[in-house]
Amino acid sequence: MKRIVLALGGNALGNDVTEQIKNVRITCEMITSLLSDRQNDYQIIITHGNGPQVGLIKLAFENSDISMPLVECCAMSQGYIGYHLQSALNDSINTHGLKYTAQSLITEVYVDKNDPAFLTPTKPIGTFYSLEEATKIMSENPGIIMKEDSGRGYRRVVASPRPVHIAEKSAILKLLDEGHIVITCGGGGIPVCEVDGRKVGVECVIDKDLSASLLARQINADILLILTAVDNVYLNYGKPDQQKLTGVTTQELEKYIREGHFADGSMLPKVKAATEFVNSAPGKTAIITSLENAAYAISEGAGTVIYQEAKVPEAVF
Amino acid sequence: MKRIVLALGGNALGNDVTEQIKNVRITCEMITSLLSDRQNDYQIIITHGNGPQVGLIKLAFENSDISMPLVECCAMSQGYIGYHLQSALNDSINTHGLKYTAQSLITEVYVDKNDPAFLTPTKPIGTFYSLEEATKIMSENPGIIMKEDSGRGYRRVVASPRPVHIAEKSAILKLLDEGHIVITCGGGGIPVCEVDGRKVGVECVIDKDLSASLLARQINADILLILTAVDNVYLNYGKPDQQKLTGVTTQELEKYIREGHFADGSMLPKVKAATEFVNSAPGKTAIITSLENAAYAISEGAGTVIYQEAKVPEAVF
Repeated sequence: MKRIVLALGGNALGNDVTEQIKNVRITCEMITSLLSDRQNDYQIIITHGNGPQVGLIKLAFENSDISMPLVECCAMSQGYIGYHLQSALNDSINTHGLKYTAQSLITEVYVDKNDPAFLTPTKPIGTFYSLEEATKIMSENPGIIMKEDSGRGYRRVVASPRPVHIAEKSAILKLLDEGHIVITCGGGGIPVCEVDGRKVGVECVIDKDLSASLLARQINADILLILTAVDNVYLNYGKPDQQKLTGVTTQELEKYIREGHFADGSMLPKVKAATEFVNSAPGKTAIITSLENAAYAISEGAGTVIYQEAKVPEAVF
Repeated sequence: MKRIVLALGGNALGNDVTEQIKNVRITCEMITSLLSDRQNDYQIIITHGNGPQVGLIKLAFENSDISMPLVECCAMSQGYIGYHLQSALNDSINTHGLKYTAQSLITEVYVDKNDPAFLTPTKPIGTFYSLEEATKIMSENPGIIMKEDSGRGYRRVVASPRPVHIAEKSAILKLLDEGHIVITCGGGGIPVCEVDGRKVGVECVIDKDLSASLLARQINADILLILTAVDNVYLNYGKPDQQKLTGVTTQELEKYIREGHFADGSMLPKVKAATEFVNSAPGKTAIITSLENAAYAISEGAGTVIYQEAKVPEAVF
């Protein structure tokens, strides 16, 4: 029995409710088809991003002059995305006659209130804007910072501190052991910290890949499978000499990180998340690939496989 | 070991995020203080309303011209309220040194797509308006219906079909048996029905008291404790001859329902929910009272206690 943490990109879920319902169904079909012949072999935990969704929710309240902190918007996005994932996954499970049941948990994740990340916003949320639109929004809203995001346009960025502890670990483990597919840490988790002995929400968005990595370590998972928009991790991505990574050790990957190959708020947190997980104990494997490629990643070792040893593991799954 | 389903009114949670955080803390302190000396005796399941909250969320998207169906707004409200309840309850549990852990579950509840309730909207959601404001909103938005709500002002009303099945029963039972306080069926549950073998969301809000009653029956609870704005159920409520009900049999209560003593979308679903639960099997008890009065309801039989037999049970708790 292997325990797999599967991290889905928030962008892959689409920008509005219609896209999200459609994309979530495709995603869930993919997940259950992967599991069809292997349901006795795997425990599955799904985490997901919420960049576009939490941005949309926050924007709606701002447009309405209704005070709604980012942390509550994050909790709402867990309900919104968690519902779609749970519903579509259970539909797909029934269609395939599998024995799992999917369950979404509202999940809080602790951050350190002294994390220096609070001083430098890096995490893109919400929709994409042109340079002109972004400049106008920033000039009209002094609290909002916009940055260019991987050639796709300008987006609002917020602080993204490191996750330090998953608050709802006990429920996750209990449901896993009872045959549930657990959907948790949505949007990286609802960010909280302790102030005067009380848990309080914090204005930021935790990177979902770092939370997935922390979760995978906290629950002693075997595999961290990070699904994103590209089939592989690349060196010199988007340049004429870009180079696809297939099997890569964490030592190599750490060197590439230091060389600045990976973009903040995009591939960088994914490779960091993968590295931290794989380095945490012997025998751990991380895979970064696209949702479409996930089946090949499992059966044929496609995608970028990250491991400790200098040899690609023969049987990852 | 008694299993108690506790239903909290959405209105009691407040109309904005600041009120909600404050009210939820008070509510959770009350719940944990009730449990302090009895934690080996009870399994607790908490459901909650979402009238003001789902209305606020829906309004924010409408103001922004962002399409967001009521069913997704309901899912968001489960995240929003479920997070606050879970967080405050776990804080309070730690303070009291109890052994429970609170966990909020995203919960879907099936309705019948042919329920005649879809033809007659009765469930108030969102904030209160004056008659003038309500008339203006209705004239500007042909799809919106506003009705007077229990002397507190005008509110938007939506269809409220009967809940017929709680989709997430298995996770609820597993977590209960593992010592969790489970927060579930928020806002009556995310309303879904089956169309062509697929679960789809439905535009409505399920009454949380009816869902709490269904939940209590589905998981074979002993007690349904409905907490609302008043200490007791009244006959001729708000009139000079109003009469407080303390102990009442379901037969008596059904007579009062037929006589029209209870308001649609307010006390009526609570007394119906209580009656259905108590009539479902011998030995079941329902209590309707205020949050403030809940302690007395337990220790001294305060509130309105609903039972099958003609004699008030000697020891309810």
